[in-house]
Amino acid sequence: MMAPDYGKTFGLWRAGAAEPWHNYMNHAFVEGLRDGSLPRASFLHYLIQDYVFLVHFSRAWSLALVKAETLAEMKVCAGMVDALVNQEMGLHVKTCAREGIDEAALYNATEAAENLAYTRYVMDAGLQGDFLDMMAALAPCVMGYGEIGVRLAAEKAADTPYAEWIATYADPEYQSVCSTVGEMIDSAVARRIGDLSSSPRALQLQDRFTRTTQLEISFWQMGMNV
Amino acid sequence: MMAPDYGKTFGLWRAGAAEPWHNYMNHAFVEGLRDGSLPRASFLHYLIQDYVFLVHFSRAWSLALVKAETLAEMKVCAGMVDALVNQEMGLHVKTCAREGIDEAALYNATEAAENLAYTRYVMDAGLQGDFLDMMAALAPCVMGYGEIGVRLAAEKAADTPYAEWIATYADPEYQSVCSTVGEMIDSAVARRIGDLSSSPRALQLQDRFTRTTQLEISFWQMGMNV
Amino acid sequence: MMAPDYGKTFGLWRAGAAEPWHNYMNHAFVEGLRDGSLPRASFLHYLIQDYVFLVHFSRAWSLALVKAETLAEMKVCAGMVDALVNQEMGLHVKTCAREGIDEAALYNATEAAENLAYTRYVMDAGLQGDFLDMMAALAPCVMGYGEIGVRLAAEKAADTPYAEWIATYADPEYQSVCSTVGEMIDSAVARRIGDLSSSPRALQLQDRFTRTTQLEISFWQMGMNV
Amino acid sequence: MMAPDYGKTFGLWRAGAAEPWHNYMNHAFVEGLRDGSLPRASFLHYLIQDYVFLVHFSRAWSLALVKAETLAEMKVCAGMVDALVNQEMGLHVKTCAREGIDEAALYNATEAAENLAYTRYVMDAGLQGDFLDMMAALAPCVMGYGEIGVRLAAEKAADTPYAEWIATYADPEYQSVCSTVGEMIDSAVARRIGDLSSSPRALQLQDRFTRTTQLEISFWQMGMNV
Repeated sequence: MMAPDYGKTFGLWRAGAAEPWHNYMNHAFVEGLRDGSLPRASFLHYLIQDYVFLVHFSRAWSLALVKAETLAEMKVCAGMVDALVNQEMGLHVKTCAREGIDEAALYNATEAAENLAYTRYVMDAGLQGDFLDMMAALAPCVMGYGEIGVRLAAEKAADTPYAEWIATYADPEYQSVCSTVGEMIDSAVARRIGDLSSSPRALQLQDRFTRTTQLEISFWQMGMNV
Repeated sequence: MMAPDYGKTFGLWRAGAAEPWHNYMNHAFVEGLRDGSLPRASFLHYLIQDYVFLVHFSRAWSLALVKAETLAEMKVCAGMVDALVNQEMGLHVKTCAREGIDEAALYNATEAAENLAYTRYVMDAGLQGDFLDMMAALAPCVMGYGEIGVRLAAEKAADTPYAEWIATYADPEYQSVCSTVGEMIDSAVARRIGDLSSSPRALQLQDRFTRTTQLEISFWQMGMNV
Repeated sequence: MMAPDYGKTFGLWRAGAAEPWHNYMNHAFVEGLRDGSLPRASFLHYLIQDYVFLVHFSRAWSLALVKAETLAEMKVCAGMVDALVNQEMGLHVKTCAREGIDEAALYNATEAAENLAYTRYVMDAGLQGDFLDMMAALAPCVMGYGEIGVRLAAEKAADTPYAEWIATYADPEYQSVCSTVGEMIDSAVARRIGDLSSSPRALQLQDRFTRTTQLEISFWQMGMNV
Repeated sequence: MMAPDYGKTFGLWRAGAAEPWHNYMNHAFVEGLRDGSLPRASFLHYLIQDYVFLVHFSRAWSLALVKAETLAEMKVCAGMVDALVNQEMGLHVKTCAREGIDEAALYNATEAAENLAYTRYVMDAGLQGDFLDMMAALAPCVMGYGEIGVRLAAEKAADTPYAEWIATYADPEYQSVCSTVGEMIDSAVARRIGDLSSSPRALQLQDRFTRTTQLEISFWQMGMNV
């Protein structure tokens, strides 16, 4: 199955992190979503932590807007913040409410170390570097979930209880978010670097992308550790 | 005429900056909007600079979201960013388009020194302090325009060509933004300080509010200097 | 044995994190330094990671200077940055050089997840909050090492090979750093809060202190995991 | 008279801002220092504002350290912070003390708008961009004073009362700071960009350099406006 096309820069970064990307895409947690074997407790633990993750991910996309340098970049970042705060976090709230966990409990959940490491690394990428440092750190989450969504939608067990989760990320609307972010990253690279492959910055941006890909793997693993 | 009520903290800050606040509310530029005597060239110069101001004001509200500590604070900040990027900036674009100035020209306009001083001071308030330092620096613009809108709607000359500008800020929707921000500031003070009037931070927050009120006066003056 | 006195605020925070603080002070890694039983490989692994930690800890104290609001705060922060970059990192370089590890290798060492989580959390505390948020997050490292140094100097085995490490932190010069930072924190609390124990911020600052104390425990544990 | 050589990148930026650079180097304030005609009140007003400038300039170099990516960059930034906080600010204190102005008065002096605009623009350059955005914004002050010092040392009137000020910046120690910063900037460009002249970032970095050069001119002018 072909991976979806989320732009040229993302393609380079993904290829440059081949092994961790594979492990992120095919983690036991993901397989458990696909075939339905993931224990409910693991999924809920993940969902609660993911809510806290989204709080800081919203802060990260807001910091990206602080660092944006074109109107187009600003609009994409503002759209991401709105989607995260007003939609994706709402999905988590709804799903958790069905399990008797309210939003105040979500917001105040104790952050797992794997969660904290991930989001604070992304924030600091923005403080230390520029807009592209943030994009390289933000891309694995945005696009990784898109790629997983597409694959699981095609390969999922008919009776997996995680069909709603899968549908969220396979949805054309989410796929369109991935494409929009991917195009914006390509433009941001053109504006700041030109040809990425011959830039002295290529290695460091790859390091950021690879690092957050590894942090995604730890995040799945955290979900399993219940 | 009574000033609108935008919350307890705002009331304290406004009273603590009585003279500059009066000069901000009643600047010759504002009087020119009211009675229609403001030269068109001044208004357009102001509008172009205000567009650039809104670019950085969006960045400032995004930084506020980075600094938010409750879900309610995050939602207000996300709403402000969305309103600024997707609505208020659009109004400027539309008005300027009617005068033959397109959005690229707006985005790339050379920033006047008064403009730069204002927005960068607000950004640095956020970098140096906490969420309240930002709120004290952001409030004069948000609420000041609300107060001016209400007064000018009541007192404007029948034939002022600036009725659309006045209506924007007198509008119940904009007034509701002021109230929402004012309530959030009261909650943010309760959460971080308790009783503001007896806090050792009171003076510094007042200084930030007073300083950006002065920077608003300079911004009006800049509009006149064409 | 009495713990050294590093100021009133530190005393409150330490008492508020009693159990994790005890576990930080008496971790197996610390006991291994004391009685000399810590494997050399663990110590070197720790030392290399601690070098990378100091890189980001220098960045964190620099961010504290960005957030300082008095000349006295600025001077303490500038002194910490200078001590970290020009002295403490030099000690690690010298010790590691004796083991055949050069500074470029140190600077480019792959950061352990426990390391990254700790330092990036501190950086983000500064971005999200104010000077006191940073101080609450920075204090456990500065003062914890001071307290460990004093105890191990008194209780160490005569033949522990880690006497030089212990002496560094038991040294009057390092103890004086702890006292200076502790006094500055007391002044910073007086300036921004007044009476900490009755402030609505007390809980959050305690959370930051407790969180980095836990991250210190994970850091010791990381040293053992070789 | 040849301008001193402070590195290749600085040379490009200086040439790219030829007219504002000339006006900065040859402002009436500078001529008044050279021939001694500058009124004492102007000099003192400048000195007080320059002290406040140095407070924020120290914060800016600290932010640069937060954004540094190599040990060499960190060391230069740490050295700058130390020199600013522990030496250059001390010079201002000493000179002002002779005029009966103590350090508390300096630290609490009301910031002129020209001063605030300059330093906050530099801080925000760091928040929005990367290390090079800061360097382009910081270079005009560091190197401009070096260039003025060298010229005025050669051309000054025998009886100018500003010989001590001139000597400070003509001093080999200060010249060596300019060279060190210039070399570090060249390395930072090599690390992040490669060939600056063919980079899409060249224009924006030039804009930052040119902007702060203009802000230097306004700063001199502020000194005259007493």
